[in-house]
Amino acid sequence: MEKYDVIVIGGGAAGITSAIFTSRKKLRTLIITIDMGGQNLLTEHEENYPGYLESSGPKLMKIFETQAKRFGADFTFGKTKSVEKHGSNFIVATAHGEKYECRVLILAYGKVPRTLGIKGEEELLGRGVSTSSTFDAPKFAGKNVAVVGGGNSALEAAVSLADIASHVYLVHRRDAFRADEITVENVRGRKNVTFVLNSVPSEIEGHDHVTGLVTEDVNTKEKKHVNLDGVFIEIGFMVDTSMIQHLVSTNHEKEVVINKYCETSCPGIFAAGDITDTPYKQTATAVGLGATAGLSAYNYICKLDGKPGAKIDWN
Amino acid sequence: MEKYDVIVIGGGAAGITSAIFTSRKKLRTLIITIDMGGQNLLTEHEENYPGYLESSGPKLMKIFETQAKRFGADFTFGKTKSVEKHGSNFIVATAHGEKYECRVLILAYGKVPRTLGIKGEEELLGRGVSTSSTFDAPKFAGKNVAVVGGGNSALEAAVSLADIASHVYLVHRRDAFRADEITVENVRGRKNVTFVLNSVPSEIEGHDHVTGLVTEDVNTKEKKHVNLDGVFIEIGFMVDTSMIQHLVSTNHEKEVVINKYCETSCPGIFAAGDITDTPYKQTATAVGLGATAGLSAYNYICKLDGKPGAKIDWN
Repeated sequence: MEKYDVIVIGGGAAGITSAIFTSRKKLRTLIITIDMGGQNLLTEHEENYPGYLESSGPKLMKIFETQAKRFGADFTFGKTKSVEKHGSNFIVATAHGEKYECRVLILAYGKVPRTLGIKGEEELLGRGVSTSSTFDAPKFAGKNVAVVGGGNSALEAAVSLADIASHVYLVHRRDAFRADEITVENVRGRKNVTFVLNSVPSEIEGHDHVTGLVTEDVNTKEKKHVNLDGVFIEIGFMVDTSMIQHLVSTNHEKEVVINKYCETSCPGIFAAGDITDTPYKQTATAVGLGATAGLSAYNYICKLDGKPGAKIDWN
Repeated sequence: MEKYDVIVIGGGAAGITSAIFTSRKKLRTLIITIDMGGQNLLTEHEENYPGYLESSGPKLMKIFETQAKRFGADFTFGKTKSVEKHGSNFIVATAHGEKYECRVLILAYGKVPRTLGIKGEEELLGRGVSTSSTFDAPKFAGKNVAVVGGGNSALEAAVSLADIASHVYLVHRRDAFRADEITVENVRGRKNVTFVLNSVPSEIEGHDHVTGLVTEDVNTKEKKHVNLDGVFIEIGFMVDTSMIQHLVSTNHEKEVVINKYCETSCPGIFAAGDITDTPYKQTATAVGLGATAGLSAYNYICKLDGKPGAKIDWN
């Protein structure tokens, strides 16, 4: 079984940043990930990452990858199946049967948008189907769109889209909203928003790009069809920390609880990015946490080895 | 008196990042700063900022500036002299007599290296005099250098320089060290380190670049001269929060205490970067905190205005 100083689970902004910092400190580092870039692979509107003047999320992540590899980090692709404690070390097993041992584990496999699981959704993602109104709304200026959901995310997406799009259909499975009242009122005040309540989307139509949406009334089962150009699925994000629940504390949203050193409740396990209970989920914040987790991992290993470690303030 | 939604004090990585995030949210934002780039102006070895493949700190900061200006942030150059609360707003006065009012204040004016205040120090900064061994050590491969200081920073600098340089003189005003014993032992084990104890530097010699160092014995007042190529001043960093002590809580190192939202103890004042009690002081961590402070500032103003504000999880 191959041994590493550090294994990072997750190859998004937080995970690759962690690996940049640990491998630059000459720690043998492996990233186990299902993709290279995480949620940034979904955006071409990366406009607020400091130091990056382009807008391609995938291209930015390619630079992160180059840096991590330059400092010597290894990558392996696959889904992590289990993590077990083994003395003071950890054993990580992937779905396709590989096993690795490490001294420090960094959890950085993020958050994924919840999906509806209906026809057309997966096929048309990035072709009119979006899970991020913040980034994709500007593409729909003057067009007709639907927003699916009833929480703050959905209602806020409806507000911002109402400013940009020609018409917004707000599709929600109930007739009341989970969102804050003030947000709901804000949406009700918009003339170009139609409420499609007690309804669930049953199919997203289109070949190359979205052309329409079919909704079904949850009571009458009656189906309705509307022509439109975009469907924003705003039903929240999901962390899946089931694999590590036996090792680290999580909050009520199942996010991994961290302190300002990115330490979890388990010594030797650190966490960074969207998987944590950090309030904002941005590339910039993921990078800050990734760096913190990487430096804390280094200090942890130095302490185990009786080495001086890095000064905390090491500018 | 000109009014802004947000005033950011400090134009380094944390401050400019805050401004990128607030101005992108259409908040009228002013940065008051003594320079454009902060501590990154001092380094040509910016190797671990994710997404940036070059190594020039100043060039990286130029990109930050471009982004902030692109979103509409204003800049004014000068030293901030005072900050006062005015109702729920704040009044910021600069040393050259300008006054501005704002609804939210973001403190991001960082930390500066302590200096010795001796001849040659200021003139030869960046020409052999360095306050950052982490970044500048590689330039001194095979050369002779001095490290000034007796704390962990200095001793760790001595260790890393001993690996790279030909010879290292460690100059310290006492005969005992404040550094951890293990670090001191590590330095004592190096054959190419000479201890110059009970001594203070009295002059750094050189015209275009450092050529020598004069030290003075604190007891005998005897002066010694040594030829060398570099002097690393590692006597710590300094925050200067005296101007804001009446408004926000600070810790024993006078750093501004923040929570995970970058909130200080004063509603409406946020802080980011090296001025805070964050454990690591890196460009990447400053950016993460800058983004957090900017987003929290936006949410704070939305709340004041009774607007829905940004969803916390707004990917």
